[in-house]
Amino acid sequence: MLLRGSFLSKIIKNELKNKISKQIKKPGLGIILVGDKPDSKIYVKMKKKACEFVGIKNFDIHLPSDVAEGKVLEKVEEFNRDDRVHGILIQLPLPKHLNEQKILNKVRLDKDVDGFHLENIGKLTVNSKDNLLVPCTPHGILELLDRNGLGDLSGKNVVVVGRSKIVGVPVAMLMLHRNATVTVCHSRTVGLMDHVRNADVLIVAVGRANFIDDVKEGAVVIDVGINRVDDDSVEKGYRIVGDVDFEKVKDKTKAITPVPGGVGPMTIAMLLSHTYDAFMNRNKE
Amino acid sequence: MLLRGSFLSKIIKNELKNKISKQIKKPGLGIILVGDKPDSKIYVKMKKKACEFVGIKNFDIHLPSDVAEGKVLEKVEEFNRDDRVHGILIQLPLPKHLNEQKILNKVRLDKDVDGFHLENIGKLTVNSKDNLLVPCTPHGILELLDRNGLGDLSGKNVVVVGRSKIVGVPVAMLMLHRNATVTVCHSRTVGLMDHVRNADVLIVAVGRANFIDDVKEGAVVIDVGINRVDDDSVEKGYRIVGDVDFEKVKDKTKAITPVPGGVGPMTIAMLLSHTYDAFMNRNKE
Repeated sequence: MLLRGSFLSKIIKNELKNKISKQIKKPGLGIILVGDKPDSKIYVKMKKKACEFVGIKNFDIHLPSDVAEGKVLEKVEEFNRDDRVHGILIQLPLPKHLNEQKILNKVRLDKDVDGFHLENIGKLTVNSKDNLLVPCTPHGILELLDRNGLGDLSGKNVVVVGRSKIVGVPVAMLMLHRNATVTVCHSRTVGLMDHVRNADVLIVAVGRANFIDDVKEGAVVIDVGINRVDDDSVEKGYRIVGDVDFEKVKDKTKAITPVPGGVGPMTIAMLLSHTYDAFMNRNKE
Repeated sequence: MLLRGSFLSKIIKNELKNKISKQIKKPGLGIILVGDKPDSKIYVKMKKKACEFVGIKNFDIHLPSDVAEGKVLEKVEEFNRDDRVHGILIQLPLPKHLNEQKILNKVRLDKDVDGFHLENIGKLTVNSKDNLLVPCTPHGILELLDRNGLGDLSGKNVVVVGRSKIVGVPVAMLMLHRNATVTVCHSRTVGLMDHVRNADVLIVAVGRANFIDDVKEGAVVIDVGINRVDDDSVEKGYRIVGDVDFEKVKDKTKAITPVPGGVGPMTIAMLLSHTYDAFMNRNKE
């Protein structure tokens, strides 16, 4: 089975569009982009387009790459106070001279749609009941499993390859709270393939093209990698591939995400969904 | 090798006593005990005694078991503002009618010597460089490994059995940041013993007497359990045993903690150490 995030994300976006159309007031997302990294600019553009599609207003601020930290914090605070803004997104990575965690921690807890505030990460870690905002990519992975009938993770061996604070560590926490037995592997792991071949559910987020070339028979494989590899046979000169060698492993899997069109689109869908949730929670008050 | 926490904790306490004796001002620990649970009263008594030994002043507040949440929060706030208090300890568990995490989150971040504030847990999760205060038992386990020459965990398979927010989850995070490959098992794990037999370092914190009866040859075994089992052959009618069947596995291990006298005393030593660190950090300001 192919876990088509591109398809599911469209369903989710249409659901959101429908729900938002029934609201008189509209949710709003504040976006802060610092600098001119081409990838970051593309991501922000995609997020804005997705917002427009579902009916989330977006308020975006573009700051120069040499901006002072105080200025960024000030802009976050403006969004914190702005009643039209229900979610705040700081596009990462930030330039090196800025203290990323300090800026992320300035975001109001209930507007933290990326789930990167330390207190929200703490809630995720201890499985706090009132933890509504978890990081988007891990949440997108769960949603992709749930909506494909693969959400029962109790007792399953889940192996996460990669330990980033954006994907690897939070997805491990989410899986643990779903009663999976969770193993986190990384660059220092000895006997990586032994762990990988033991995974009922394998989640790979390391950023190395075709890094994993074998899996357990019947595994569910979630490939978070987005890597460019040279390919002269196509016009643009490169292809996008995942961290898993799709062609080599696909026939052994029970389900696998394609790259592109797997986890990637789910991340944006979850950002929209979190912004809508933050908006609805605000309205309840 | 026996990992004698009772012995190491004495060394640490003597080191602290020596360091504190050289300070004109003294560190202080504020302790809040709610209710009359016998175990909790014993733990508080042990902690106070340990404070006195090393020269940490203790300020303890005993509240009735039916105390209002607002009253507890008020007392925490008094300690937050009290310049003689550098660390604050809320003895857990709290009575059911109190919101434990809300009370723990009231503790000033830099006085959070138990490391249970959500923001400190978040820092632990993302391996924040400025994370000084981590939970005492996990820290005690690391110290026990480090001071016995077993602290190089890079690439080791660490298996944690139990996923409590006080021990299992935070110790898994600490081990991951030490570059171990970490697996977290629990009551829902399928094939537990396969995971256990694969552990270079096994950490068990489930609260079930003699639950684990086999390990990998040459494993390092950390037993966090403290369980009473009936024993008519001793005067008090019971013995304290760990979660690991010590007699059955000890000859296979490279190192193992006894119970009692293993991890337990390390927890208190770390509490004192954290209080001293919080005091020194305060003085730097």
